[in-house]
Amino acid sequence: MLLDKVRYIIKKHRLIERGERLVIGVSGGPDSVALLYVLNSLKRELKLTLHIAHLDHMLRKDSCKDAEFVQRLAQRLKIPITSGQIRVKELARKGSLEEIARNARLGFLFRVAKDIKTRKIALGHNLDDQAETVLMRILRGCGLYGLAGILPKREISGFQIIRPLIEVRRREINAYLKQRGIRPRLDASNLEDIYLRNKIRNRLLPLLEEGYNKNIKDLLCNLAECAGMDYDYLDKRALRFLKQFRKLNLKKIMALHPALLRLVLRKSIAYLAGNTRRLTFRHMQELEDLIYNRPINSIVDLPGNICVIKKKNHLSINKKAQ
Amino acid sequence: MLLDKVRYIIKKHRLIERGERLVIGVSGGPDSVALLYVLNSLKRELKLTLHIAHLDHMLRKDSCKDAEFVQRLAQRLKIPITSGQIRVKELARKGSLEEIARNARLGFLFRVAKDIKTRKIALGHNLDDQAETVLMRILRGCGLYGLAGILPKREISGFQIIRPLIEVRRREINAYLKQRGIRPRLDASNLEDIYLRNKIRNRLLPLLEEGYNKNIKDLLCNLAECAGMDYDYLDKRALRFLKQFRKLNLKKIMALHPALLRLVLRKSIAYLAGNTRRLTFRHMQELEDLIYNRPINSIVDLPGNICVIKKKNHLSINKKAQ
Repeated sequence: MLLDKVRYIIKKHRLIERGERLVIGVSGGPDSVALLYVLNSLKRELKLTLHIAHLDHMLRKDSCKDAEFVQRLAQRLKIPITSGQIRVKELARKGSLEEIARNARLGFLFRVAKDIKTRKIALGHNLDDQAETVLMRILRGCGLYGLAGILPKREISGFQIIRPLIEVRRREINAYLKQRGIRPRLDASNLEDIYLRNKIRNRLLPLLEEGYNKNIKDLLCNLAECAGMDYDYLDKRALRFLKQFRKLNLKKIMALHPALLRLVLRKSIAYLAGNTRRLTFRHMQELEDLIYNRPINSIVDLPGNICVIKKKNHLSINKKAQ
Repeated sequence: MLLDKVRYIIKKHRLIERGERLVIGVSGGPDSVALLYVLNSLKRELKLTLHIAHLDHMLRKDSCKDAEFVQRLAQRLKIPITSGQIRVKELARKGSLEEIARNARLGFLFRVAKDIKTRKIALGHNLDDQAETVLMRILRGCGLYGLAGILPKREISGFQIIRPLIEVRRREINAYLKQRGIRPRLDASNLEDIYLRNKIRNRLLPLLEEGYNKNIKDLLCNLAECAGMDYDYLDKRALRFLKQFRKLNLKKIMALHPALLRLVLRKSIAYLAGNTRRLTFRHMQELEDLIYNRPINSIVDLPGNICVIKKKNHLSINKKAQ
């Protein structure tokens, strides 16, 4: 059952080609352990070469037990493994714990992928994670991109992150593990948004399922899929514009459809700032006001030390010296 | 304050041109009464010609009092009025009460607009209605179009529905009315989704505001605005395709981006079925499966007596005889 479903997801989203090498991020929790077993079962059929990556965040005293557990798993399945350690808390003195843990985790996965000469990394996010993420994004405020939630396939810095379990319920994963007598470690918190996510998981989603729509999780995941598809189309159109016109010529951008203009602006800002996570709806409205209504040489300051100046013929986006 | 805001909304969404004739739908409830007063205040500035339309749904015993109230309002403001009556309950024997009431209301507004030789109709939906609608759509399942919620400007059958209060809070409307000593009738239920909407209004939104994000209503409205903009862009691209290629040539539609393909299919179906309200995510997936995977002459049946046949070179969408 689960195997068929994952096969279907892989095909539908074109996640894996025959003969590929894959890094699998394995925390030791149910999702990543199930992912490991499933991909191991598909190994021969898809001619895959698998490699496990485990990063110990050293946030709990017994986190080394997760590492040992994953080591034993690797031995049992005869799959090579790279383990790493990182003292997130020490690094985090300089910034947000979430962001630093996320970057450290990605950096580690990228290094392992590079070592084994692949660009593809599989992670164990499931349908419930997806529903929680979409709801969390809605509650924090988002647009189309945020609604797309966790993408089944995503490029970051030239690496491809794939999620073969993204349409599988947590319930199905647990049933699969139980049936096979596999006992994973308790899910190590992924550190991200742990407070809000738990509240959404344990209180809001059950309330919505009971009082409003028992299929709410599926609906949120369908919404994410539609939003992801629509965003991808807009994204491609915006990229095409940016490749064609390196400079943001005022006349040219004013002739764009407003939906495309917003995306062109976001992408230009992300290019300098690294991301647009702190860019709000109000910022975008201010930029539109700058472009359409304010006099030449007006300036809009944005998060991430970005400033946007309306020049005579073009829009100039700059990163300020820190 | 409210006047400035409505002026801003009208400008931003280009709702009204100077010198236009407007039908205003006035139920007698706070929203439509405030809309009437605000547009009356802007009358000279925008050189508007106003006309009130009131439809009595005859669902409550005292609904004629709403009609009398709106009549007196029209006299006081010296604005011509057309009143109508409709026994929704009798009509509704043949179908859903919501749908029939909605169509009857629109039909009445269109007739009044035609009589006074205009195509523009103003309605009183506000920001709270918008937030409730978006949340309701999410809870029932929707894509980008559903997320756009109540559009500030919308074409239906050649008429243009505008909502100048769509970014105004219910609270602001009530404050405006109180300050001017205007006492509207209690909001006549608009019949649509009354049970779910009330539950969302009175229970879910307060819970989300208190426990998750006090700005949730604004965020839902921002989301609606972004989704509306993005949808408009996709819609224009899909329309362009449909104008260029009347027949759904299989090769041509398979070369489309999947986001555009879905919209092209939806629009083709809506053209025959009247709308796509009963078309679900699963139906769309089935159509994609038909196009990409099933053999020639395969058929997919859809709600609204629509059937889609995969021919050798094109996709044939037909309405079955009833």
